[in-house]
Amino acid sequence: MNTIAAISTPPGVGGIAVVRLSGPEAVAIASQHCRVTPGMHFSVFRDGEAFIDEVMVASHAAPHSYTGEDVVEISCHGSLYVQEALLNALIASGARLAEPGEFTRRAFLNGKLDLSQAEAVADLIDSTNAAQHRLAVSQLRGGYAQKLKGLRQQLLELTSLLELELDFSQEDVEFADRSQLRQLLSTLNSQLSTLIDSFHMGNALKKGIPVAIVGEPNAGKSTLLNALLHDDRAIVSPIPGTTRDTIEETFVIDGIPYRLIDTAGLRQSNDEVERLGIERSRQAARQADIIIYVHDATQPDSQMADHLQQLPLDGKHLIVVYNKVDLLNSSSKLEEVPARAEECVKISAKTGDGLDTLLTRLSTLNARFSIQGDTLLTNVRHRDALVHVKEALAHVAEGLDNGLPSDLVAIDLRDALHHLGTITGEVTTDEILGTIFTRFCVGK
Amino acid sequence: MNTIAAISTPPGVGGIAVVRLSGPEAVAIASQHCRVTPGMHFSVFRDGEAFIDEVMVASHAAPHSYTGEDVVEISCHGSLYVQEALLNALIASGARLAEPGEFTRRAFLNGKLDLSQAEAVADLIDSTNAAQHRLAVSQLRGGYAQKLKGLRQQLLELTSLLELELDFSQEDVEFADRSQLRQLLSTLNSQLSTLIDSFHMGNALKKGIPVAIVGEPNAGKSTLLNALLHDDRAIVSPIPGTTRDTIEETFVIDGIPYRLIDTAGLRQSNDEVERLGIERSRQAARQADIIIYVHDATQPDSQMADHLQQLPLDGKHLIVVYNKVDLLNSSSKLEEVPARAEECVKISAKTGDGLDTLLTRLSTLNARFSIQGDTLLTNVRHRDALVHVKEALAHVAEGLDNGLPSDLVAIDLRDALHHLGTITGEVTTDEILGTIFTRFCVGK
Repeated sequence: MNTIAAISTPPGVGGIAVVRLSGPEAVAIASQHCRVTPGMHFSVFRDGEAFIDEVMVASHAAPHSYTGEDVVEISCHGSLYVQEALLNALIASGARLAEPGEFTRRAFLNGKLDLSQAEAVADLIDSTNAAQHRLAVSQLRGGYAQKLKGLRQQLLELTSLLELELDFSQEDVEFADRSQLRQLLSTLNSQLSTLIDSFHMGNALKKGIPVAIVGEPNAGKSTLLNALLHDDRAIVSPIPGTTRDTIEETFVIDGIPYRLIDTAGLRQSNDEVERLGIERSRQAARQADIIIYVHDATQPDSQMADHLQQLPLDGKHLIVVYNKVDLLNSSSKLEEVPARAEECVKISAKTGDGLDTLLTRLSTLNARFSIQGDTLLTNVRHRDALVHVKEALAHVAEGLDNGLPSDLVAIDLRDALHHLGTITGEVTTDEILGTIFTRFCVGK
Repeated sequence: MNTIAAISTPPGVGGIAVVRLSGPEAVAIASQHCRVTPGMHFSVFRDGEAFIDEVMVASHAAPHSYTGEDVVEISCHGSLYVQEALLNALIASGARLAEPGEFTRRAFLNGKLDLSQAEAVADLIDSTNAAQHRLAVSQLRGGYAQKLKGLRQQLLELTSLLELELDFSQEDVEFADRSQLRQLLSTLNSQLSTLIDSFHMGNALKKGIPVAIVGEPNAGKSTLLNALLHDDRAIVSPIPGTTRDTIEETFVIDGIPYRLIDTAGLRQSNDEVERLGIERSRQAARQADIIIYVHDATQPDSQMADHLQQLPLDGKHLIVVYNKVDLLNSSSKLEEVPARAEECVKISAKTGDGLDTLLTRLSTLNARFSIQGDTLLTNVRHRDALVHVKEALAHVAEGLDNGLPSDLVAIDLRDALHHLGTITGEVTTDEILGTIFTRFCVGK
């Protein structure tokens, strides 16, 4: 096994930076440049005769380190030149530049964490809000891996019952209690379904809950978007829309990320281009979990019912917003909440009146998105693997129903075990590992 | 004294990040969130009940730390959310967000380093090439401070001799041997002049040695610029020119930075705008230490002597480059080296022929820029202070010549001491400290 080295701190200039070495030669290589002793100590880092920097050197002996190998961490001044000089000196002395995620890959290969925990490390590093952070932490801390282990245990039990039968197949014995098998299968199936179904929620939390802002032209949709973003502008990240007239921005309420999607105004139009824009609005509404319908309160709302009728509202939350209330004279009476809407909020996107109420409504709706003790599936690779497991188990059930011989049923069971194993890493291929660890930054 | 906290690693996402605490409450504050023990240990960082991250915690007790105070360093996963969450938790527990350079400011106030060394820390962090690094390291390691201490010692000796005389002034005694004073003054003066003169070299090394590329239009100046930059493109940094037609790029040979300045072609022109461009070329040449005059080898060189005549060559190096040699037939004979040039190099910027020779020539010329054991002045604040010291000493010499009373001469001497003291920090004002430490990044 090579000894690998990389800069582990974020790229760029800062007060300090950390260069990390891992592998059997970590101490020997670092010792050519600085003093390496157990624990953490001040030292001077030299390249031959040349003084490079004053550093702090920490060493962790195998197996009590992140990677399970000997690890040396050198904290230096965060200058571009110094960081590069340290790394080059270590490489000249026999270390190899680490690939993305290679430290964590070694931690996985040395049994320090399973594959789903390794993926959680990458999710944790990528996390920019509380929801992403909690999802990653829960996966990293092993609750999820524990649940998968339970599933695996039950599958193994099934398999061993069937395979025992297989050993005696020439004697035409049925050891396995078929009704017990069916019971086990049904329990497994419902656990799998719950996990697979949680992907929608987990994915929304990870990428932001999609919120479409729709309504008539000039109702103040873009003003509302700007007003909402301004509220937390510091963590706004602009994502160029995939469709020309749709703008997406992410913002965070109470640690939960939302993807706000501003759309073209809805109206009957004979203009072909405008009709395409309106089609895009409907599409955004279809993909959204929450729809905010913005109405200009100074205008008649005769068309609202029609528009709402045409929106795909099934399984979605609808908030109707009466905008421009600052322009109403006090005697104006607003219409009641339309039949299909759960909420009706009066605001002025321009003056900011009512925005707090709208934000509170959004965060109340999102209660169903809060991370309870439940495990949420956030990783599309895991979702696909679990779908495969479920399919294989359906074949098993079918086989049992049709009185297929045990050895044929066992093939499907082993298939289910295989797919489950790819999640935590009992089963790996270079391809799976490659896909997972190239997502990482270098140095982790 | 408050306890301060900041993220010390470069801003952004990475494998790991380090949050640093310094001050009397550092251990108490960190202990509310993680386990703090002497040395470096694994711990979990919590905010109240909430798990934030798995961390490594290192603590350094006063006065054996960077700042001279109690310091706790927490290494966490380099996620934006985790970094922010750690910092916010520490601030909620009583730490204050550190100002830029405040850790180093405290190190200075606690006598861990002098002011010129503190400035060297900022220079070291900013260093992107070997020359900047060596200058900063030499200043950080105290060779420069030692030289200033020597100057200060001599000045104090002068002063005490004069002030002794002053104490007995009513008795009209001349204790100080005036010729010894003059001798000391003259030594000091020449040492100061050497240091002040080294600023040009130190500053060129720090910011890049200015190299102007001049020549006739279409001689291939820009092709040469691109070819030179391509050679080391990885560390090219584009600096938009202050004048419209002048392009500046930095590149590095053998660790020494050069600022390449591409200019408008030289020719007699009646066009007003073009004449302004040509004036800018001459200006660039005036500011350069090295001038590369590019000539198209396929054209007659009848105008070269005229052009060179008009360039400000005094105290500069001139390299004449015959470009486009790939277009010459083998029988062509190139002219001899023009009288005023030190070097003549035949190249093809297009094919790359001869570029190595040109680079070797540049790095030979730059031998005078190499950092010998000599101390080079790189800091404009120090230069200005030394100029003040020199002026004050000139007044002292004048006073002695004119037989001024000792008490008046002593005023100028104290003035010299004051200005010298501002460099290493024996004399400081909040203004000086403010100017110095705002240059730093937060977290150092």
